Amino acid sequence: MRDVVVIGVGMTRFGKFLERGMPDLGREAVWNAIGDAGIPPRDIRIAYVANALGYQLTELKGTIGQHVLAAAGFFGIPIVNVENACSSGSTALRGACLEVASGNCDVALALGVEKLFCEDTARSALAMASGTPYAKFGFMFPALYAMSLKKWMDRYGVTQRHFARVAAKNSHNGSLNPNAQFRKALTVGEILASRVIAYPLTLYMCSTMGDGAAAAIVATRDAAKRYTSKPLIEVAACELVSGTVNFPGTPHVPLETRAARLAYEKAGIGPEDINVAEVHDGMAPAEMLIYEELGLCREGEAARLVDEEMTAITGSIPVNPSGGLTAKGHPVGATGLAQVAEIVWQLRGEAGPRQVKDPKVGLTENAGGWVIDDNAACAVTILKR
Amino acid sequence: MRDVVVIGVGMTRFGKFLERGMPDLGREAVWNAIGDAGIPPRDIRIAYVANALGYQLTELKGTIGQHVLAAAGFFGIPIVNVENACSSGSTALRGACLEVASGNCDVALALGVEKLFCEDTARSALAMASGTPYAKFGFMFPALYAMSLKKWMDRYGVTQRHFARVAAKNSHNGSLNPNAQFRKALTVGEILASRVIAYPLTLYMCSTMGDGAAAAIVATRDAAKRYTSKPLIEVAACELVSGTVNFPGTPHVPLETRAARLAYEKAGIGPEDINVAEVHDGMAPAEMLIYEELGLCREGEAARLVDEEMTAITGSIPVNPSGGLTAKGHPVGATGLAQVAEIVWQLRGEAGPRQVKDPKVGLTENAGGWVIDDNAACAVTILKR
Repeated sequence: MRDVVVIGVGMTRFGKFLERGMPDLGREAVWNAIGDAGIPPRDIRIAYVANALGYQLTELKGTIGQHVLAAAGFFGIPIVNVENACSSGSTALRGACLEVASGNCDVALALGVEKLFCEDTARSALAMASGTPYAKFGFMFPALYAMSLKKWMDRYGVTQRHFARVAAKNSHNGSLNPNAQFRKALTVGEILASRVIAYPLTLYMCSTMGDGAAAAIVATRDAAKRYTSKPLIEVAACELVSGTVNFPGTPHVPLETRAARLAYEKAGIGPEDINVAEVHDGMAPAEMLIYEELGLCREGEAARLVDEEMTAITGSIPVNPSGGLTAKGHPVGATGLAQVAEIVWQLRGEAGPRQVKDPKVGLTENAGGWVIDDNAACAVTILKR
Repeated sequence: MRDVVVIGVGMTRFGKFLERGMPDLGREAVWNAIGDAGIPPRDIRIAYVANALGYQLTELKGTIGQHVLAAAGFFGIPIVNVENACSSGSTALRGACLEVASGNCDVALALGVEKLFCEDTARSALAMASGTPYAKFGFMFPALYAMSLKKWMDRYGVTQRHFARVAAKNSHNGSLNPNAQFRKALTVGEILASRVIAYPLTLYMCSTMGDGAAAAIVATRDAAKRYTSKPLIEVAACELVSGTVNFPGTPHVPLETRAARLAYEKAGIGPEDINVAEVHDGMAPAEMLIYEELGLCREGEAARLVDEEMTAITGSIPVNPSGGLTAKGHPVGATGLAQVAEIVWQLRGEAGPRQVKDPKVGLTENAGGWVIDDNAACAVTILKR
C-alpha cells in the first residue's frame, strides 16, 4: 500500500443555517479544501461523501454526494455515498485513503455534509432520537449517558464538576475558533447552573443540533508535492470497527479501545506519542471516558487529567482544541472530517489563537450509531507531520 | 492489486413481505451466501452494506448494516454503509473487492437489502418519486422514460411492440426463477393490453416495488481455495462513474457507456466477449437502450436484437435470464448484488431451467439516481469463470 497524505482541508462554520441546503454547505467546504490544497479540481478522481441524517430529515432523497458535488462543479467521477452515524465523516476519509493507498488513483476527496435544522422542528427533533424502541419513553442519548454514568462516577470519584470543567475547557476553545457554532466562553459555574437535561448532564454539557460541512483531499506523497508546499500530513492509520459503544459498565472492551489499538498498531506508535486529539464529546462526560479508552491515561485517571488541566490547549495532551462537539457543533456527517481539518491545521501550526505547541502526531476519534440493541461504529485516525 | 474472486452468493426471494424487516431479509441472504461459500463467518473481515430507500421509508434510522449484520450474528468487524440509488448494491461489491484487492483483508462481504413495502402505502409510494422538483406534477420515472423515448423510437423504427417483447422475454425468464417476485409468463398481447402508465409504457413493462436482499462474498484466489471447490468466479472489473443518465437525446456520452468502456478496458475484453448479462431494465425500453450503450449491438440495432430473439436465454447474447427488474423485482439496494448472484450461478452452470449455454464471461449493469438536475450513478461489473 502507498503512503497517503492530506493535502487540503476545508469546512464551513457550523451552526443553524435555515436558508442553506446541503449542496450549498458542501460546495463551500469542498472549495475551501481545493483552495487549501492548490489543486485543479479535475485532478480529483473519486469522492466519498458522508451524510448521516439529512437524507431522512431534510433532503428526502438519496445520492446526496452527487447532488452536492454537482453543485460544486464535479461531474463524471465515481462518487460513493457512505453512512456510519457519528463516524460517517471518518468512514468517508477511510474510503478516500484506501483508493489512494491501493493505487486506484492519486488524489481523492472525502466530504462530510449535514443539515439537521429544518423549518419543521418536529422533523429536526428526530435527529435527537437514539433510534431505539425506548425513544418514545424519553430514553434518548442524554438519558443513556446519565443512567450509565453514575456507577462510573462513584467508582472513580468523578463529580458533576469534572464534567463541567471539560465543557468549560471546550467552550473556551470554541471561543477561539471562528468555525465554531458557540463562541461564548462559559464558566464552570454557568455550566453547572444551566438547565438539567438528565442528571448529571446540564444543558451546556451536551452537543446540539448543527448544519455544516467539512472536507479533506488526500493524495500520494509524489502527487502531493506537485500541488502544495505546505507540510504534508500523513494518514498513518484510519481504522474502523463496529461493536458495543462505550457506556460505562458494559462487560466488553469498548469499541473505542479496539479501534485505538488497531490504529496505534498500524501507525507504529502508542498513546504516549499523541500530541493533540479531537474526540467525540457528544456529551462532556464522554470525553473523559474517551481519555481512558484511547489510553491517554489509565483507567480511573480521567478525573486527574481534568483536575490538572492536562487536556487544555496549554496542557501536556490537549484534547478538542477546536471546541469539540459541545462548542464547535455536531452536524453529524461532517464531524469526523472537521476533526481531521482541525488536526491538520494544528500539525501545520495554522491554528491561530488555539494553536497547540508544536504537535507532531494527532488523533481523531468518532463513535456512534444506535447503541442499545445493535452494533455501533467507531473510527480512529492518526495523522503525522 | 490482487485478483478477487466471488466464492459465495445468496439472496432472498424478492417480493412483498410486510411481515419481514431488513434484519430478517439481510440475515437470510448473508447466510445463504455463507452456506454457498462454505466459509466460517469469522473469516469475513469487513462488510459493505447497501441500502437505498429503506432508511427513509421504513426503518427511519441509520447504520442499517450494523443492525442487519447483528441480526446475522456479526459483531466487531468494520461495516461500511453505502448508498448510490439503483447502483447501491454494485457500489457495495466494489468496496468489498477493493478491500481484498488492496490487501486490507482476504475475505469481504457485500450485502444489499431493501424494504419498500410499508403498512403505510403513502410512505411506500415515496419510493416511486424521482426526487425532482417536478415530481409533484407527476413527472416521475415512467413519465421521464415515456417523454424521452419517442424521438428514439421514430429515428430507429422501434415500436411499442418491441418493448412488450422485451418484457415478455423477461417475464418468461422470471417464471423459471424461484427467487423472482413475478413468476407468471406473460404474452406480448397481455403486456400490450395492460394499463397504460405513460405511453408507450404499459403496466407490465415497468419494474415494481419490492422487498429483498442479496449478498456476495469475495476473496483472494488463495483464500478461496481453502473454502470451496466450486468454480471461482473472478471479478475482472467493477467500475463506478457518475454523470448524466441514459435518456435518449441527451447530448453526452451516456454514463452507462462510460462505465462499460472502463470495465472492458480493466477486464481486457470487449463487448463481443460477453456471454450473458444482467442489466437495469427499470422499464423494459431501458433494456434496449442498454444493449446499445454496452456495445452489445451498434447504435440503432437494438430492435434487431429483439426481433431476432438474440437476448433470449437461447440467443447469442442472453440478457436478464433471471427475469430482470421487471420480473425478478427491484428492491433497490439489493438489485446489483442479485444480478451478481445470477451471473455467478450462470457461470457455474447452476441456473437450472434458465441456464444459458456454457457462458464464460458475464456482465452486470446498474444505473440510477435523481436524474434531472444532477449526477446519477452507474456501475458495470464483469465476472469471468
